[in-house]
Amino acid sequence: MANGSGFSAEQTEHNLPLPFRDRQQEIVITLIRGLNEGAFMERLVGGAQRMAAGLGVRLIELEGNGEQAAMSQLVAEAIQQGVHGIIVSHGVGELLLPAVRLALDAGIRVVSIDTVIDHSAVPEIEQDDLAIGLLIGKSLALRHNGEARVIYINDDVYAPLVKRDRLWQDVKWRYSGLYELTQIRSVTSTAMVSTTQALGAALRDYPEANVVLAMWNELANGALDAIEQAGQGERIEVYGVDCTDADIQRMVAPGSPWVATVATDAAAMGRLAVRTLAALLAGEAVPKYLLVEPVLITQEFLRAGRIGSMDELVRALPTLAESEFMWFNWMELLLERNGQVMPLLNTRVVEALRETEASLRVMVAQQRQLIDTITELSTPVVPVHDHILILPLIGTIDSRRSTQIMDSLLASVQQHQAYFVIIDITGVPLVDTAVAGHLMQAIRAVKLLGAECVIVGVSPEIAQTIIGLGIDVQGLTARGTMQDGIAYALARQGLRQRAAPQP
Amino acid sequence: MANGSGFSAEQTEHNLPLPFRDRQQEIVITLIRGLNEGAFMERLVGGAQRMAAGLGVRLIELEGNGEQAAMSQLVAEAIQQGVHGIIVSHGVGELLLPAVRLALDAGIRVVSIDTVIDHSAVPEIEQDDLAIGLLIGKSLALRHNGEARVIYINDDVYAPLVKRDRLWQDVKWRYSGLYELTQIRSVTSTAMVSTTQALGAALRDYPEANVVLAMWNELANGALDAIEQAGQGERIEVYGVDCTDADIQRMVAPGSPWVATVATDAAAMGRLAVRTLAALLAGEAVPKYLLVEPVLITQEFLRAGRIGSMDELVRALPTLAESEFMWFNWMELLLERNGQVMPLLNTRVVEALRETEASLRVMVAQQRQLIDTITELSTPVVPVHDHILILPLIGTIDSRRSTQIMDSLLASVQQHQAYFVIIDITGVPLVDTAVAGHLMQAIRAVKLLGAECVIVGVSPEIAQTIIGLGIDVQGLTARGTMQDGIAYALARQGLRQRAAPQP
Repeated sequence: MANGSGFSAEQTEHNLPLPFRDRQQEIVITLIRGLNEGAFMERLVGGAQRMAAGLGVRLIELEGNGEQAAMSQLVAEAIQQGVHGIIVSHGVGELLLPAVRLALDAGIRVVSIDTVIDHSAVPEIEQDDLAIGLLIGKSLALRHNGEARVIYINDDVYAPLVKRDRLWQDVKWRYSGLYELTQIRSVTSTAMVSTTQALGAALRDYPEANVVLAMWNELANGALDAIEQAGQGERIEVYGVDCTDADIQRMVAPGSPWVATVATDAAAMGRLAVRTLAALLAGEAVPKYLLVEPVLITQEFLRAGRIGSMDELVRALPTLAESEFMWFNWMELLLERNGQVMPLLNTRVVEALRETEASLRVMVAQQRQLIDTITELSTPVVPVHDHILILPLIGTIDSRRSTQIMDSLLASVQQHQAYFVIIDITGVPLVDTAVAGHLMQAIRAVKLLGAECVIVGVSPEIAQTIIGLGIDVQGLTARGTMQDGIAYALARQGLRQRAAPQP
Repeated sequence: MANGSGFSAEQTEHNLPLPFRDRQQEIVITLIRGLNEGAFMERLVGGAQRMAAGLGVRLIELEGNGEQAAMSQLVAEAIQQGVHGIIVSHGVGELLLPAVRLALDAGIRVVSIDTVIDHSAVPEIEQDDLAIGLLIGKSLALRHNGEARVIYINDDVYAPLVKRDRLWQDVKWRYSGLYELTQIRSVTSTAMVSTTQALGAALRDYPEANVVLAMWNELANGALDAIEQAGQGERIEVYGVDCTDADIQRMVAPGSPWVATVATDAAAMGRLAVRTLAALLAGEAVPKYLLVEPVLITQEFLRAGRIGSMDELVRALPTLAESEFMWFNWMELLLERNGQVMPLLNTRVVEALRETEASLRVMVAQQRQLIDTITELSTPVVPVHDHILILPLIGTIDSRRSTQIMDSLLASVQQHQAYFVIIDITGVPLVDTAVAGHLMQAIRAVKLLGAECVIVGVSPEIAQTIIGLGIDVQGLTARGTMQDGIAYALARQGLRQRAAPQP
């Protein structure tokens, strides 16, 4: 994985495949799309642009505006311009194939999104529509304990819808308590409006219906309108497919009957398309089919996570965010070079968790050592003269540290046969009851060993605190500074030595 | 999640559902199984026993030995014994239903595993066989870029096999380049042997075959034997279903043609069955269908992870390990009470990663503070006399710390108008070139401020090191101990003061 330690610039270059090694010769690719504007395409293009930037590739967008002739024309133009690679998205494969062949003949690599190109050199990227059908059908079946009366809305004009339909037939076969009351087939050019009208009628014809299953989001939104108009939100649950910002808003709206949807992230599709094209340019082995895994998204999940947009959803559900396919080590190097972070792939999450936990354990061990070091460092008992020790205390004193100080102090007094200990509290920021108590205990203990303590560095504030706390300061010797304390000790020591019996 | 902070014993009791609150009245459940011994059942029972122990429930095992009459008899005995709950596994639902009804009438809760019990009060736990069929079929299709010539081995006598078959039909429909050359239907009582014979013949009849798809592990193992006998391991890839310790061994064996399988963990099935029964006993809402999600397991994954057993596989693939279903907060309390750790559920992995990363960030910040504290603590420059400072150094000195020491020392020399600084290195464990260099720099800098350094506490080892390093020690004043150093400074200071011009 890309990480801070990284590679040197030369190492990076060395590990890159040839077309990506030469930074003077820019790689240019183009995305030719057949779909009009829309939230899905916007996210797809955004994802593709970001991935291209990460790989240091220039991506030019060309809009076919839904006309296949225009798309073929754009492919021809791209060949003229001498681009290195072409992504065709949402076109009709058979119509595009001649233009795609010309591109391939010109040595240009081609990748398709949701477009069946019958050529083994053109990888196809698509949502896994069989899995979509299974996931949404199963969700419906399980949430109703295998028993529901369903109005089914689906078309058979688009290949993805036919695949989703096939799995719904399987789910019905598996759960015999699922009854399909009727199927609504919408005129797809005005899918939403015609769905609303047809469902309005079906809701009247089938008052026993309790579920509407709509196999794409235009149909689901049309269904929601009909249910709202009929005031049947309480009675009906809607199961849909796809997920946009607007769809999320409709799912989480109060009283919304849209309880579940199944979707991929369009941004992940766009990113995968760019990676696949880059892999082809680098000479990597690329499979013919690249399926992006869909994820079930429930209303409860969105509401519980207060999720209101695709960006928020992707953060909450990283499995939705990034396809596992077509990641190569050299791509990570390029991302690093271009200031992008390697995304956390689903297969990496558990590994990342283990690594993070291991780091945490190391940190905890280091932390313990550091705390030990602090404890050790913070009780420097220093002999400055015969029989005179100084103890400059620095930092906050807690009960653990005060125990350590007491141990260290008493051992030093004995070891150095000290008569005097000068305790400097200039560096102690706070003296509370506990600290004062510990200090007084230390002083009394030192006295039992036959030595005397002198406190120095007491600030006016700390003096007030000590008195305010009602600490008994009788018998406590204090001086202003360390020098005063040492002078006092030297003078007293002179007396003491003179008072001692002569040998 | 269960954690260290935990609940007090009373809080735990208060949060438990009634039947689990009274520790005097043990909850007894029984597992009645129709399958003979085998790796799958062994793991299933092990999982169930462990979950029962975690919830503080006593689980009694009863073996039906594959005879349905015996299973019904065992249900009747369990009713007699007054158990609280019954799990029936791998039986024939229609035959068991009368006995199950008697149990339900007696107020006993019932859960089934891989057994269709046509009663809304009996939750059914099963592997998601539709998903199994889709996953293994798709794996085959994608790994062969949609083009393969397949010998298909499957039976239609068991419901799970029929479901898997249905999805294989879908995958064939989706990828028109998949050709099914022939289907082998085995006599299931001797599935492995008959598969081996039939496949041996098919391999001769269809020399163009390059894939064998076998929809359960007995069939896959039979297929492997035939392929080995025919010496066709190079030509054929095997796709299977299920995964036991023995299956893993066969998949990772050198030259094994078994490249992928799809499986659930039997232990997870057993654990889910016990949780579901406990949830029923606690009065929780339980759905009719509980599907355990299967996972695709490839030969490359097993080999790359050096995985040789189901236990190792589950550690490497936690998504395989534990079903997300039927977890309640009170179960976590019971697990904690019974000394078991809450497993890391798949939906929790990302959350756990975020939590761990957050902890790590906190630790890093704390670490930085601790290091700052150490830096601060470890340069205690203490004035012990007029114009005399001491600097007792403790601990390892790195370049960061030596900079800090230098700054602190020079500031103190100026602030206290010091003439002498006594640097005590008794507490420095190691002196290398860098440390010695830093020390000499500090001494020279102090000299520029008009003061003199005295080094004390040099051990014989460190003295040798310093000389060995070739450090210039000319002009360096050294004394044995801090007291000697101070005595030297006092004596020199007397000289200096006497030498100074009188005011």
